[in-house]
Amino acid sequence: MKKKNKKVNAAILIIGNEILSGRTQDKNTAFISNWLNSKCGISVNEVRIIPDLQKVLVKNVLELSKNFNYVFTTGGIGPTHDDITAESISKAFKIKYEYHKEAFKILENYYGKSKFNDGRKKMAKMPSGAKLIYNPSSAAPGFIIKNVFSLPGVPSILNSMIENCKRYLIKGSTIHSKTLNLFTVESNISKQLGIIQKKNKKFVDIGSYPFFRLGKIGVSIVTRSTSKIKLQKVNRDLINLARLKKIEILKI
Amino acid sequence: MKKKNKKVNAAILIIGNEILSGRTQDKNTAFISNWLNSKCGISVNEVRIIPDLQKVLVKNVLELSKNFNYVFTTGGIGPTHDDITAESISKAFKIKYEYHKEAFKILENYYGKSKFNDGRKKMAKMPSGAKLIYNPSSAAPGFIIKNVFSLPGVPSILNSMIENCKRYLIKGSTIHSKTLNLFTVESNISKQLGIIQKKNKKFVDIGSYPFFRLGKIGVSIVTRSTSKIKLQKVNRDLINLARLKKIEILKI
Repeated sequence: MKKKNKKVNAAILIIGNEILSGRTQDKNTAFISNWLNSKCGISVNEVRIIPDLQKVLVKNVLELSKNFNYVFTTGGIGPTHDDITAESISKAFKIKYEYHKEAFKILENYYGKSKFNDGRKKMAKMPSGAKLIYNPSSAAPGFIIKNVFSLPGVPSILNSMIENCKRYLIKGSTIHSKTLNLFTVESNISKQLGIIQKKNKKFVDIGSYPFFRLGKIGVSIVTRSTSKIKLQKVNRDLINLARLKKIEILKI
Repeated sequence: MKKKNKKVNAAILIIGNEILSGRTQDKNTAFISNWLNSKCGISVNEVRIIPDLQKVLVKNVLELSKNFNYVFTTGGIGPTHDDITAESISKAFKIKYEYHKEAFKILENYYGKSKFNDGRKKMAKMPSGAKLIYNPSSAAPGFIIKNVFSLPGVPSILNSMIENCKRYLIKGSTIHSKTLNLFTVESNISKQLGIIQKKNKKFVDIGSYPFFRLGKIGVSIVTRSTSKIKLQKVNRDLINLARLKKIEILKI
Protein backbone atom coordinates (compact mmCIF):
# COMPACT_ATOMS: atom_id res chain seq x y z
CA MET A 1 0.00 0.00 0.00
CA LYS A 2 1.51 3.31 -1.09
CA LYS A 3 1.30 6.22 1.28
CA LYS A 4 0.57 9.80 0.41
CA ASN A 5 0.18 12.56 2.92
CA LYS A 6 -3.17 13.83 1.73
CA LYS A 7 -6.90 13.42 1.98
CA VAL A 8 -8.21 10.36 0.18
CA ASN A 9 -11.94 9.73 -0.01
CA ALA A 10 -14.36 7.01 -1.05
CA ALA A 11 -18.03 6.36 -1.67
CA ILE A 12 -19.95 3.18 -0.93
CA LEU A 13 -22.67 1.89 -3.26
CA ILE A 14 -24.93 -0.67 -1.59
CA ILE A 15 -26.81 -2.62 -4.26
CA GLY A 16 -29.90 -4.55 -3.26
CA ASN A 17 -33.68 -4.38 -3.00
CA GLU A 18 -33.52 -6.22 0.34
CA ILE A 19 -31.76 -3.26 1.99
CA LEU A 20 -33.99 -0.65 0.36
CA SER A 21 -37.18 -2.44 1.41
CA GLY A 22 -36.04 -2.53 5.04
CA ARG A 23 -36.10 -6.33 5.08
CA THR A 24 -32.35 -6.52 5.74
CA GLN A 25 -30.37 -4.13 7.93
CA ASP A 26 -27.26 -2.88 6.11
CA LYS A 27 -24.14 -3.65 8.11
CA ASN A 28 -21.57 -3.16 5.35
CA THR A 29 -21.48 0.65 5.47
CA ALA A 30 -20.28 0.80 9.08
CA PHE A 31 -17.80 -2.03 8.53
CA ILE A 32 -16.22 -0.70 5.33
CA SER A 33 -16.15 2.87 6.60
CA ASN A 34 -14.47 1.90 9.87
CA TRP A 35 -11.95 -0.23 8.03
CA LEU A 36 -11.09 2.46 5.45
CA ASN A 37 -10.79 5.06 8.18
CA SER A 38 -8.68 3.14 10.64
CA LYS A 39 -6.57 1.01 8.30
CA CYS A 40 -6.17 3.24 5.23
CA GLY A 41 -6.76 6.85 6.31
CA ILE A 42 -9.58 7.03 3.76
CA SER A 43 -12.81 8.89 4.59
CA VAL A 44 -16.13 7.70 3.26
CA ASN A 45 -17.87 10.86 2.03
CA GLU A 46 -21.05 9.42 0.56
CA VAL A 47 -23.11 6.23 0.65
CA ARG A 48 -25.92 5.32 -1.71
CA ILE A 49 -28.31 2.40 -1.50
CA ILE A 50 -29.93 1.52 -4.81
CA PRO A 51 -32.14 -1.22 -6.29
CA ASP A 52 -31.03 -4.10 -8.54
CA LEU A 53 -31.70 -2.18 -11.75
CA GLN A 54 -29.07 -1.90 -14.46
CA LYS A 55 -29.94 1.65 -15.51
CA VAL A 56 -29.76 2.92 -11.94
CA LEU A 57 -26.54 1.03 -11.25
CA VAL A 58 -24.81 2.39 -14.37
CA LYS A 59 -25.76 5.98 -13.55
CA ASN A 60 -24.61 5.76 -9.92
CA VAL A 61 -21.33 3.96 -10.63
CA LEU A 62 -20.38 6.63 -13.17
CA GLU A 63 -21.32 9.52 -10.86
CA LEU A 64 -19.53 8.16 -7.80
CA SER A 65 -16.49 6.95 -9.74
CA LYS A 66 -16.06 10.46 -11.11
CA ASN A 67 -16.59 12.30 -7.81
CA PHE A 68 -14.57 10.18 -5.37
CA ASN A 69 -11.11 8.59 -5.28
CA TYR A 70 -12.57 5.12 -4.74
CA VAL A 71 -15.97 3.45 -4.94
CA PHE A 72 -16.81 0.29 -3.02
CA THR A 73 -19.89 -1.60 -4.22
CA THR A 74 -21.52 -4.35 -2.18
CA GLY A 75 -23.97 -6.95 -3.41
CA GLY A 76 -25.13 -8.33 -6.71
CA ILE A 77 -22.15 -10.51 -7.60
CA GLY A 78 -23.75 -13.91 -6.91
CA PRO A 79 -25.21 -16.49 -9.32
CA THR A 80 -28.87 -15.41 -9.57
CA HIS A 81 -30.83 -13.24 -12.02
CA ASP A 82 -30.82 -10.27 -9.60
CA ASP A 83 -27.01 -10.30 -9.47
CA ILE A 84 -26.28 -7.65 -12.09
CA THR A 85 -23.36 -5.71 -10.63
CA ALA A 86 -20.51 -7.04 -12.81
CA GLU A 87 -22.48 -6.71 -16.05
CA SER A 88 -23.72 -3.23 -15.15
CA ILE A 89 -20.25 -1.93 -14.24
CA SER A 90 -18.93 -3.29 -17.56
CA LYS A 91 -21.70 -1.42 -19.30
CA ALA A 92 -21.02 1.78 -17.32
CA PHE A 93 -17.38 1.83 -18.38
CA LYS A 94 -18.07 0.41 -21.88
CA ILE A 95 -15.77 -2.53 -21.16
CA LYS A 96 -16.40 -6.07 -22.42
CA TYR A 97 -18.19 -8.36 -19.91
CA GLU A 98 -16.45 -11.74 -20.12
CA TYR A 99 -15.05 -14.70 -18.23
CA HIS A 100 -12.01 -13.86 -16.11
CA LYS A 101 -9.64 -16.79 -16.66
CA GLU A 102 -8.25 -16.95 -13.13
CA ALA A 103 -11.68 -16.47 -11.53
CA PHE A 104 -13.02 -19.27 -13.74
CA LYS A 105 -10.25 -21.61 -12.57
CA ILE A 106 -10.71 -20.71 -8.90
CA LEU A 107 -14.42 -21.47 -9.09
CA GLU A 108 -13.98 -24.63 -11.17
CA ASN A 109 -11.50 -25.97 -8.61
CA TYR A 110 -13.76 -25.02 -5.72
CA TYR A 111 -16.94 -26.64 -7.06
CA GLY A 112 -15.37 -29.44 -9.09
CA LYS A 113 -15.90 -29.73 -12.85
CA SER A 114 -19.13 -31.75 -12.62
CA LYS A 115 -20.86 -29.27 -10.29
CA PHE A 116 -19.63 -26.14 -12.05
CA ASN A 117 -22.99 -25.14 -13.55
CA ASP A 118 -24.04 -21.98 -15.43
CA GLY A 119 -25.04 -20.07 -12.28
CA ARG A 120 -21.64 -20.70 -10.76
CA LYS A 121 -19.85 -19.87 -14.00
CA LYS A 122 -21.62 -16.52 -14.03
CA MET A 123 -19.61 -15.54 -10.94
CA ALA A 124 -16.44 -15.67 -13.09
CA LYS A 125 -17.81 -13.09 -15.53
CA MET A 126 -16.61 -9.51 -14.99
CA PRO A 127 -15.34 -6.45 -16.84
CA SER A 128 -12.40 -7.36 -19.07
CA GLY A 129 -9.07 -6.59 -17.40
CA ALA A 130 -10.48 -6.56 -13.86
CA LYS A 131 -8.16 -7.42 -10.97
CA LEU A 132 -9.44 -10.03 -8.50
CA ILE A 133 -10.22 -9.55 -4.82
CA TYR A 134 -9.66 -13.02 -3.38
CA ASN A 135 -12.36 -14.60 -1.22
CA PRO A 136 -11.10 -16.90 1.56
CA SER A 137 -14.61 -17.90 2.71
CA SER A 138 -16.55 -18.94 -0.37
CA ALA A 139 -14.12 -18.74 -3.33
CA ALA A 140 -16.12 -16.41 -5.61
CA PRO A 141 -13.83 -13.39 -5.99
CA GLY A 142 -14.71 -9.72 -6.03
CA PHE A 143 -13.09 -7.49 -8.61
CA ILE A 144 -11.49 -4.10 -9.20
CA ILE A 145 -11.95 -2.10 -12.38
CA LYS A 146 -10.73 1.52 -12.64
CA ASN A 147 -11.36 2.97 -9.15
CA VAL A 148 -14.31 0.68 -8.37
CA PHE A 149 -13.99 -2.22 -5.90
CA SER A 150 -16.86 -4.76 -6.07
CA LEU A 151 -17.52 -6.90 -3.02
CA PRO A 152 -20.33 -9.32 -2.14
CA GLY A 153 -23.31 -8.31 0.01
CA VAL A 154 -23.14 -11.04 2.70
CA PRO A 155 -21.32 -9.28 5.58
CA SER A 156 -19.33 -12.28 6.85
CA ILE A 157 -17.92 -12.94 3.35
CA LEU A 158 -17.24 -9.25 2.68
CA ASN A 159 -15.45 -8.92 6.02
CA SER A 160 -13.17 -11.83 5.15
CA MET A 161 -12.18 -10.20 1.84
CA ILE A 162 -11.60 -6.58 2.77
CA GLU A 163 -7.91 -6.95 3.69
CA ASN A 164 -7.26 -8.09 0.11
CA CYS A 165 -8.23 -4.61 -1.13
CA LYS A 166 -5.45 -2.90 0.82
CA ARG A 167 -2.60 -3.34 -1.64
CA TYR A 168 -4.56 -1.55 -4.35
CA LEU A 169 -5.36 1.54 -2.25
CA ILE A 170 -3.38 4.72 -1.84
CA LYS A 171 -3.23 5.52 1.85
CA GLY A 172 -4.38 8.93 3.08
CA SER A 173 -3.33 10.75 6.22
CA THR A 174 -4.51 8.86 9.30
CA ILE A 175 -7.64 10.40 10.78
CA HIS A 176 -7.46 10.57 14.58
CA SER A 177 -10.60 10.68 16.65
CA LYS A 178 -11.51 11.37 20.29
CA THR A 179 -14.84 11.07 22.05
CA LEU A 180 -15.76 13.05 25.15
CA ASN A 181 -18.98 11.99 26.87
CA LEU A 182 -20.68 14.72 28.87
CA PHE A 183 -23.72 14.38 31.13
CA THR A 184 -25.58 17.39 29.76
CA VAL A 185 -28.01 18.26 26.97
CA GLU A 186 -26.86 19.60 23.61
CA SER A 187 -28.58 22.94 23.98
CA ASN A 188 -26.61 23.67 27.18
CA ILE A 189 -23.32 23.72 25.29
CA SER A 190 -24.34 24.36 21.68
CA LYS A 191 -23.26 28.01 21.64
CA GLN A 192 -19.75 27.43 23.02
CA LEU A 193 -19.35 24.30 20.89
CA GLY A 194 -20.12 26.37 17.82
CA ILE A 195 -17.46 28.88 18.80
CA ILE A 196 -14.83 26.17 19.33
CA GLN A 197 -15.74 24.59 15.97
CA LYS A 198 -15.51 27.93 14.19
CA LYS A 199 -12.07 28.65 15.68
CA ASN A 200 -10.78 25.24 14.53
CA LYS A 201 -12.80 24.63 11.41
CA LYS A 202 -9.82 24.12 9.13
CA PHE A 203 -8.32 21.20 11.02
CA VAL A 204 -10.82 19.64 13.41
CA ASP A 205 -14.36 18.35 12.84
CA ILE A 206 -16.58 18.44 15.91
CA GLY A 207 -19.75 16.35 16.00
CA SER A 208 -22.31 16.29 18.81
CA TYR A 209 -24.51 13.24 19.43
CA PRO A 210 -27.06 12.76 22.22
CA PHE A 211 -26.94 9.48 24.18
CA PHE A 212 -28.84 7.79 26.97
CA ARG A 213 -26.67 5.90 29.44
CA LEU A 214 -26.82 4.86 33.10
CA GLY A 215 -30.33 6.30 33.17
CA LYS A 216 -29.09 9.76 32.26
CA ILE A 217 -29.09 11.90 29.13
CA GLY A 218 -25.73 12.90 27.73
CA VAL A 219 -23.89 14.19 24.69
CA SER A 220 -20.94 12.54 22.96
CA ILE A 221 -18.62 15.13 21.49
CA VAL A 222 -16.67 13.44 18.72
CA THR A 223 -13.61 15.26 17.37
CA ARG A 224 -11.73 14.14 14.27
CA SER A 225 -8.54 15.46 12.73
CA THR A 226 -5.43 14.42 10.84
CA SER A 227 -3.39 16.38 13.42
CA LYS A 228 -3.02 14.78 16.86
CA ILE A 229 -1.79 18.04 18.36
CA LYS A 230 -4.77 20.07 17.17
CA LEU A 231 -7.10 17.31 18.33
CA GLN A 232 -5.60 17.44 21.83
CA LYS A 233 -5.87 21.21 21.93
CA VAL A 234 -9.57 21.15 21.02
CA ASN A 235 -10.20 18.44 23.59
CA ARG A 236 -8.54 20.56 26.30
CA ASP A 237 -10.89 23.41 25.31
CA LEU A 238 -13.85 21.02 25.56
CA ILE A 239 -12.81 19.76 29.00
CA ASN A 240 -12.42 23.36 30.17
CA LEU A 241 -15.91 24.11 28.86
CA ALA A 242 -17.29 21.14 30.83
CA ARG A 243 -15.54 22.33 34.03
CA LEU A 244 -16.78 25.87 33.57
CA LYS A 245 -20.35 24.65 33.17
CA LYS A 246 -19.93 22.10 36.00
CA ILE A 247 -20.80 19.24 33.65
CA GLU A 248 -19.95 15.71 34.77
CA ILE A 249 -17.67 13.81 32.35
CA LEU A 250 -18.40 10.12 31.83
CA LYS A 251 -15.22 8.11 32.25
CA ILE A 252 -14.98 4.98 30.10
CA MET B 1 -54.36 10.05 3.92
CA LYS B 2 -55.59 10.09 0.33
CA LYS B 3 -55.40 6.88 -1.59
CA LYS B 4 -54.41 6.49 -5.20
CA ASN B 5 -54.06 3.21 -6.99
CA LYS B 6 -50.58 3.73 -8.31
CA LYS B 7 -46.90 3.43 -7.57
CA VAL B 8 -45.63 6.04 -5.15
CA ASN B 9 -41.93 6.22 -4.33
CA ALA B 10 -39.60 7.94 -1.89
CA ALA B 11 -35.93 8.52 -1.19
CA ILE B 12 -34.25 8.75 2.21
CA LEU B 13 -31.44 11.21 2.90
CA ILE B 14 -29.45 10.34 6.03
CA ILE B 15 -27.49 13.39 7.16
CA GLY B 16 -24.59 12.90 9.55
CA ASN B 17 -20.84 12.38 9.78
CA GLU B 18 -21.38 9.83 12.57
CA ILE B 19 -23.09 7.42 10.16
CA LEU B 20 -20.59 7.97 7.35
CA SER B 21 -17.60 7.39 9.62
CA GLY B 22 -19.04 4.07 10.78
CA ARG B 23 -19.20 5.25 14.40
CA THR B 24 -22.99 4.90 14.48
CA GLN B 25 -24.99 2.17 12.77
CA ASP B 26 -27.87 3.64 10.75
CA LYS B 27 -31.19 2.19 11.87
CA ASN B 28 -33.48 4.77 10.34
CA THR B 29 -33.38 3.45 6.77
CA ALA B 30 -34.84 0.07 7.67
CA PHE B 31 -37.45 1.62 9.98
CA ILE B 32 -38.68 4.31 7.57
CA SER B 33 -38.64 1.96 4.60
CA ASN B 34 -40.62 -0.72 6.41
CA TRP B 35 -43.11 1.85 7.65
CA LEU B 36 -43.61 3.46 4.22
CA ASN B 37 -43.98 0.06 2.61
CA SER B 38 -46.38 -1.52 5.03
CA LYS B 39 -48.42 1.51 6.13
CA CYS B 40 -48.45 3.69 3.02
CA GLY B 41 -47.74 1.48 0.01
CA ILE B 42 -44.73 3.67 -0.75
CA SER B 43 -41.47 2.10 -2.00
CA VAL B 44 -38.12 3.55 -1.03
CA ASN B 45 -36.11 3.59 -4.27
CA GLU B 46 -32.92 5.27 -3.13
CA VAL B 47 -31.06 6.09 0.07
CA ARG B 48 -28.13 8.45 0.41
CA ILE B 49 -25.92 9.06 3.42
CA ILE B 50 -24.10 12.39 3.33
CA PRO B 51 -21.93 14.54 5.63
CA ASP B 52 -23.03 17.67 7.54
CA LEU B 53 -22.01 20.03 4.76
CA GLN B 54 -24.38 22.65 3.42
CA LYS B 55 -23.24 22.45 -0.21
CA VAL B 56 -23.63 18.67 -0.29
CA LEU B 57 -26.99 18.82 1.47
CA VAL B 58 -28.39 21.43 -0.94
CA LYS B 59 -27.32 19.43 -4.00
CA ASN B 60 -28.76 16.15 -2.72
CA VAL B 61 -32.06 17.58 -1.52
CA LEU B 62 -32.65 19.16 -4.91
CA GLU B 63 -31.75 16.01 -6.84
CA LEU B 64 -33.83 13.65 -4.73
CA SER B 65 -36.77 16.04 -4.45
CA LYS B 66 -36.91 16.22 -8.24
CA ASN B 67 -36.53 12.49 -8.88
CA PHE B 68 -38.85 10.99 -6.25
CA ASN B 69 -42.38 11.62 -5.00
CA TYR B 70 -41.18 12.13 -1.44
CA VAL B 71 -37.87 12.67 0.34
CA PHE B 72 -37.37 11.84 4.02
CA THR B 73 -34.34 13.41 5.66
CA THR B 74 -33.03 12.28 9.04
CA GLY B 75 -30.63 14.13 11.31
CA GLY B 76 -29.28 17.63 11.64
CA ILE B 77 -32.30 19.37 13.20
CA GLY B 78 -30.98 19.72 16.75
CA PRO B 79 -29.47 22.73 18.54
CA THR B 80 -25.75 22.42 17.73
CA HIS B 81 -23.47 23.91 15.05
CA ASP B 82 -23.50 20.67 13.02
CA ASP B 83 -27.32 20.78 12.77
CA ILE B 84 -27.68 22.43 9.39
CA THR B 85 -30.60 20.60 7.77
CA ALA B 86 -33.32 23.25 8.12
CA GLU B 87 -31.10 26.09 6.93
CA SER B 88 -29.72 24.03 4.02
CA ILE B 89 -33.18 22.96 2.82
CA SER B 90 -34.31 26.61 2.95
CA LYS B 91 -31.31 27.48 0.83
CA ALA B 92 -31.94 24.61 -1.61
CA PHE B 93 -35.48 25.81 -2.30
CA LYS B 94 -34.61 29.52 -2.01
CA ILE B 95 -37.12 29.92 0.81
CA LYS B 96 -36.58 32.22 3.80
CA TYR B 97 -35.15 30.52 6.90
CA GLU B 98 -37.05 31.90 9.88
CA TYR B 99 -38.76 31.15 13.19
CA HIS B 100 -41.90 29.05 12.82
CA LYS B 101 -44.39 30.64 15.21
CA GLU B 102 -46.07 27.45 16.39
CA ALA B 103 -42.75 25.57 16.73
CA PHE B 104 -41.40 28.50 18.77
CA LYS B 105 -44.39 28.31 21.12
CA ILE B 106 -44.18 24.54 21.49
CA LEU B 107 -40.50 24.75 22.45
CA GLU B 108 -40.95 27.77 24.72
CA ASN B 109 -43.70 25.93 26.62
CA TYR B 110 -41.64 22.76 26.82
CA TYR B 111 -38.45 24.37 28.18
CA GLY B 112 -40.01 27.29 30.06
CA LYS B 113 -39.19 30.90 29.17
CA SER B 114 -36.10 31.15 31.38
CA LYS B 115 -34.43 28.05 29.94
CA PHE B 116 -35.34 28.76 26.32
CA ASN B 117 -31.81 29.68 25.16
CA ASP B 118 -30.47 30.35 21.67
CA GLY B 119 -29.60 26.70 20.95
CA ARG B 120 -33.15 25.65 21.75
CA LYS B 121 -34.62 28.55 19.80
CA LYS B 122 -32.66 27.39 16.77
CA MET B 123 -34.84 24.28 16.67
CA ALA B 124 -37.83 26.52 15.86
CA LYS B 125 -36.15 27.91 12.75
CA MET B 126 -37.16 26.32 9.45
CA PRO B 127 -38.11 27.14 5.86
CA SER B 128 -40.91 29.72 5.79
CA GLY B 129 -44.32 28.08 5.32
CA ALA B 130 -43.20 24.64 6.53
CA LYS B 131 -45.78 22.33 8.09
CA LEU B 132 -44.86 20.77 11.44
CA ILE B 133 -44.36 17.09 12.22
CA TYR B 134 -45.23 16.88 15.91
CA ASN B 135 -42.81 15.20 18.30
CA PRO B 136 -44.40 13.39 21.25
CA SER B 137 -41.06 12.44 22.86
CA SER B 138 -38.95 15.58 23.03
CA ALA B 139 -41.11 18.42 21.69
CA ALA B 140 -38.79 19.72 18.92
CA PRO B 141 -40.89 19.23 15.76
CA GLY B 142 -39.81 18.03 12.34
CA PHE B 143 -41.09 19.85 9.30
CA ILE B 144 -42.42 19.41 5.77
CA ILE B 145 -41.59 21.73 2.90
CA LYS B 146 -42.58 20.87 -0.68
CA ASN B 147 -42.16 17.08 -0.90
CA VAL B 148 -39.41 16.91 1.74
CA PHE B 149 -40.08 15.54 5.25
CA SER B 150 -37.38 16.36 7.83
CA LEU B 151 -37.07 14.14 10.87
CA PRO B 152 -34.48 13.91 13.67
CA GLY B 153 -31.66 11.38 13.64
CA VAL B 154 -32.18 9.74 17.05
CA PRO B 155 -34.11 6.56 16.16
CA SER B 156 -36.38 6.44 19.24
CA ILE B 157 -37.53 10.03 18.63
CA LEU B 158 -37.95 9.52 14.88
CA ASN B 159 -39.98 6.36 15.50
CA SER B 160 -42.35 8.25 17.80
CA MET B 161 -42.98 10.90 15.12
CA ILE B 162 -43.41 8.89 11.96
CA GLU B 163 -47.18 8.35 12.29
CA ASN B 164 -47.60 12.13 12.18
CA CYS B 165 -46.36 12.13 8.57
CA LYS B 166 -49.17 9.89 7.36
CA ARG B 167 -51.84 12.51 6.78
CA TYR B 168 -49.57 14.38 4.37
CA LEU B 169 -48.76 11.36 2.18
CA ILE B 170 -50.60 10.05 -0.85
CA LYS B 171 -50.99 6.32 -0.43
CA GLY B 172 -49.73 3.99 -3.15
CA SER B 173 -50.92 0.50 -3.96
CA THR B 174 -50.09 -1.87 -1.12
CA ILE B 175 -47.00 -3.92 -1.86
CA HIS B 176 -47.46 -7.55 -0.81
CA SER B 177 -44.50 -9.72 0.00
CA LYS B 178 -43.84 -13.41 0.59
CA THR B 179 -40.67 -15.18 1.70
CA LEU B 180 -39.89 -18.79 0.89
CA ASN B 181 -36.88 -20.25 2.70
CA LEU B 182 -35.19 -23.13 0.89
CA PHE B 183 -32.37 -25.30 2.17
CA THR B 184 -30.25 -25.10 -0.96
CA VAL B 185 -27.57 -22.91 -2.51
CA GLU B 186 -28.36 -20.11 -4.95
CA SER B 187 -26.50 -21.64 -7.86
CA ASN B 188 -28.67 -24.78 -7.65
CA ILE B 189 -31.81 -22.83 -8.57
CA SER B 190 -30.46 -19.68 -10.24
CA LYS B 191 -31.33 -20.76 -13.80
CA GLN B 192 -34.97 -21.68 -13.07
CA LEU B 193 -35.37 -18.64 -10.83
CA GLY B 194 -34.23 -16.46 -13.72
CA ILE B 195 -36.85 -18.06 -15.98
CA ILE B 196 -39.65 -17.52 -13.44
CA GLN B 197 -38.56 -13.89 -12.95
CA LYS B 198 -38.46 -13.28 -16.72
CA LYS B 199 -41.97 -14.72 -17.18
CA ASN B 200 -43.33 -12.46 -14.43
CA LYS B 201 -41.11 -9.42 -14.69
CA LYS B 202 -43.93 -6.94 -15.18
CA PHE B 203 -45.73 -7.69 -11.93
CA VAL B 204 -43.51 -9.57 -9.49
CA ASP B 205 -40.02 -8.82 -8.17
CA ILE B 206 -38.04 -11.86 -7.11
CA GLY B 207 -35.02 -11.47 -4.86
CA SER B 208 -32.70 -14.23 -3.72
CA TYR B 209 -30.71 -13.95 -0.47
CA PRO B 210 -28.42 -16.57 1.07
CA PHE B 211 -28.87 -17.36 4.79
CA PHE B 212 -27.28 -19.54 7.44
CA ARG B 213 -29.76 -21.11 9.87
CA LEU B 214 -29.95 -24.25 12.02
CA GLY B 215 -26.39 -25.00 10.96
CA LYS B 216 -27.37 -25.18 7.30
CA ILE B 217 -26.98 -22.94 4.28
CA GLY B 218 -30.17 -21.75 2.61
CA VAL B 219 -31.70 -19.19 0.28
CA SER B 220 -34.58 -16.85 1.07
CA ILE B 221 -36.65 -16.19 -2.02
CA VAL B 222 -38.47 -12.91 -1.47
CA THR B 223 -41.29 -12.05 -3.85
CA ARG B 224 -42.98 -8.65 -3.94
CA SER B 225 -45.97 -7.46 -5.94
CA THR B 226 -48.97 -5.16 -5.79
CA SER B 227 -51.08 -8.11 -6.99
CA LYS B 228 -51.84 -10.81 -4.40
CA ILE B 229 -52.99 -13.23 -7.10
CA LYS B 230 -49.81 -12.91 -9.16
CA LEU B 231 -47.74 -13.25 -5.99
CA GLN B 232 -49.49 -16.51 -5.11
CA LYS B 233 -49.02 -17.86 -8.62
CA VAL B 234 -45.29 -17.17 -8.57
CA ASN B 235 -45.00 -18.75 -5.13
CA ARG B 236 -46.77 -21.88 -6.39
CA ASP B 237 -44.18 -22.04 -9.21
CA LEU B 238 -41.38 -21.65 -6.66
CA ILE B 239 -42.77 -24.44 -4.44
CA ASN B 240 -43.05 -26.68 -7.49
CA LEU B 241 -39.43 -25.91 -8.35
CA ALA B 242 -38.37 -26.86 -4.81
CA ARG B 243 -40.31 -30.16 -5.03
CA LEU B 244 -38.84 -30.98 -8.43
CA LYS B 245 -35.32 -30.38 -7.13
CA LYS B 246 -36.11 -32.20 -3.84
CA ILE B 247 -35.22 -29.11 -1.83
CA GLU B 248 -36.34 -28.97 1.80
CA ILE B 249 -38.52 -25.94 2.63
CA LEU B 250 -37.94 -24.28 6.02
CA LYS B 251 -41.28 -23.83 7.77
CA ILE B 252 -41.51 -20.79 10.04
